Amino acid sequence: MKKYYLMAPGPTPVPPTVLLAMAQPVLHHRTPEYEALFLEVRTGLKRLFQTGQDVIPLTSSGTGALEAAVCNTLSPGDTALVLRAGKFGERWEEICRAYGVTVVPMDAAFGQTVPAEVVGETLRRHPHAKAVLVQHSESSTGVLHDVKGIAAVTRGSGAILVVDAVSSLGIADLRMDEWGLDLVLAGSQKGLMLPPGLAFCALSDRAWGHVRASRLPKYYFDLTAERKFVTRNECRFTPAVSIFVGLREVLKLLEAEGLPNVFRRHERLARATRSGVEALGLELFAKAQPSPALTAVVAPRGIDSEAVLSTYSTSHNITIAGGQGEMKGRVFRLGHMGHVGDFDVVTALAALEQVLAELGHPVDFGEGVRAAQKVLAER
Amino acid sequence: MKKYYLMAPGPTPVPPTVLLAMAQPVLHHRTPEYEALFLEVRTGLKRLFQTGQDVIPLTSSGTGALEAAVCNTLSPGDTALVLRAGKFGERWEEICRAYGVTVVPMDAAFGQTVPAEVVGETLRRHPHAKAVLVQHSESSTGVLHDVKGIAAVTRGSGAILVVDAVSSLGIADLRMDEWGLDLVLAGSQKGLMLPPGLAFCALSDRAWGHVRASRLPKYYFDLTAERKFVTRNECRFTPAVSIFVGLREVLKLLEAEGLPNVFRRHERLARATRSGVEALGLELFAKAQPSPALTAVVAPRGIDSEAVLSTYSTSHNITIAGGQGEMKGRVFRLGHMGHVGDFDVVTALAALEQVLAELGHPVDFGEGVRAAQKVLAER
Repeated sequence: MKKYYLMAPGPTPVPPTVLLAMAQPVLHHRTPEYEALFLEVRTGLKRLFQTGQDVIPLTSSGTGALEAAVCNTLSPGDTALVLRAGKFGERWEEICRAYGVTVVPMDAAFGQTVPAEVVGETLRRHPHAKAVLVQHSESSTGVLHDVKGIAAVTRGSGAILVVDAVSSLGIADLRMDEWGLDLVLAGSQKGLMLPPGLAFCALSDRAWGHVRASRLPKYYFDLTAERKFVTRNECRFTPAVSIFVGLREVLKLLEAEGLPNVFRRHERLARATRSGVEALGLELFAKAQPSPALTAVVAPRGIDSEAVLSTYSTSHNITIAGGQGEMKGRVFRLGHMGHVGDFDVVTALAALEQVLAELGHPVDFGEGVRAAQKVLAER
Repeated sequence: MKKYYLMAPGPTPVPPTVLLAMAQPVLHHRTPEYEALFLEVRTGLKRLFQTGQDVIPLTSSGTGALEAAVCNTLSPGDTALVLRAGKFGERWEEICRAYGVTVVPMDAAFGQTVPAEVVGETLRRHPHAKAVLVQHSESSTGVLHDVKGIAAVTRGSGAILVVDAVSSLGIADLRMDEWGLDLVLAGSQKGLMLPPGLAFCALSDRAWGHVRASRLPKYYFDLTAERKFVTRNECRFTPAVSIFVGLREVLKLLEAEGLPNVFRRHERLARATRSGVEALGLELFAKAQPSPALTAVVAPRGIDSEAVLSTYSTSHNITIAGGQGEMKGRVFRLGHMGHVGDFDVVTALAALEQVLAELGHPVDFGEGVRAAQKVLAER
């Protein structure tokens, strides 16, 4: 009997009460019951996005919301600045290319970030740029980009700031209205503790202005059309109703804990994880500010990170994640977002000690756990 | 205590065993477990689509698959013939318009169909048409279009035949390879007895040829890119994993019943429903071949069909559906697809008798049920 643990940076574990709520008989999406559910969820999502704007749900993975952000705010030939410091930064570029949008990359080595000043300079060199596309938490490298600082330098330009918050919403503080973010998007399967299948977009008035000028084709992801339905507490097309039912439960959990506490919890678990990893002599992949959502770790010299991953799985029945793209084989990633508590971190680190030993790496058993325990004991 | 019944033409009831399977802890989509699940589902989907081609899953509602069909097979300025005889026929047109594809409508009054010969003539008048876009079952009118006949007249042309089988897959016989259908698409929440959130596309070699020539922009719905992942038993982006888990269970149920029996069951339930409705003196909306998925009924003179719908709901806790677009107020729709048996039809008709009486319409109690019972007694 080996208990199963999902410790990847998304999808993340869904609380059992939420799983059971979603196992109730399916709700129809054109009924007063669904309208009431939608209204409740609509209100909760605004608080979670820290915005007065409506949050528009889409039945898709997070990538659908990335595409919606591009094809609703831009036109063929427009220029977009892309913070390219990881696989999801590269995804922005791929989407822009698919739609004939010119990309000005702002590059940093994977594991690093692009400082807000560099974004500001790039905007001055490209005064006609229509959008700045960034991740808040770059899930492939475990770096948290300085969205607040980037918003400050973008505000005075003609570009809108589009923030992929897929792995930061409900994990790291992200103040859409206060910081002046123009478009924030997220998915259901990370901090929201739900199965994958729902994505979300919230737009500032400035972003809606861009939407009115956009000439890229769209239908399923047409945010203008979808917005009209949201104001009537429904979705344009048949939504993933069961995930909506779960969302209501999750929003109640987050509300009960309180957003500041949710952010503090993630920061604390992330710090404990990093502390444990470093105590085992391993190197963190993130050289810039680490994300509270996940910890990317460089595999010890001579060990393929894919072996770390598969040993976690085969020996301990724990799913973590490997490196993506050029980081494959070099990096493994531990998720600590969503329905995660102190002893999940302890488990992840205890397993890491076992995995390293199994792979022939010298381990002083307990050192990783001890370091984490000290962080967790802080009050 | 009023038991709840979902009797709308989608979403449809999900079998309790499937709901519980989906309530299991979330599976990660880059694991050997998921690969094994995907492979099983992949094989089952081919049998369900009656094709040797791979079926490509998309995390979206059925409309996402309609859009994928258009933006993957056509180019700006292309001409597409659209069978426009209901709301979903109109949806084809809206998607084409959004992408700059010229639509040649082939119209029939709602409740009617367009004969295959008319499609053939239209193709001869538009020899450069690249696609014929049709529904198999038009959920808004309850008509089953003659997809087999249309395939026969399309085959010799340069156009591919694209079939929206959202409300017919696993309900009405649809032989993709044998009939020569080029692109068949479906969703999870109808005959597949799952929550909404997954859609599917299967393409013939001829359709893949069109895909190679297509110049419309796409990213999330890029079927060429997605196909590469399918051959490796995975999805390109994080899929709706919990619905995949349910899909495995549903495919087992369909397999155990046997597809021919599944089709016969739906045909029989539909016939019983129509018989009951007519015995109550009501008129069927479908004047052409009725769909086995649902029965659209004209509300009696002087009664708004929205009142029928709301009385079903408030008096009996049963969700049915009303008329869409121009049919609103005139038509109500009873679904009998997916996880539906004899006594669901009896319940729907017994409730209809009560509802009509409550709305002041003269009813000979038991007449609707009696007529249905006779059909159900046939062996």
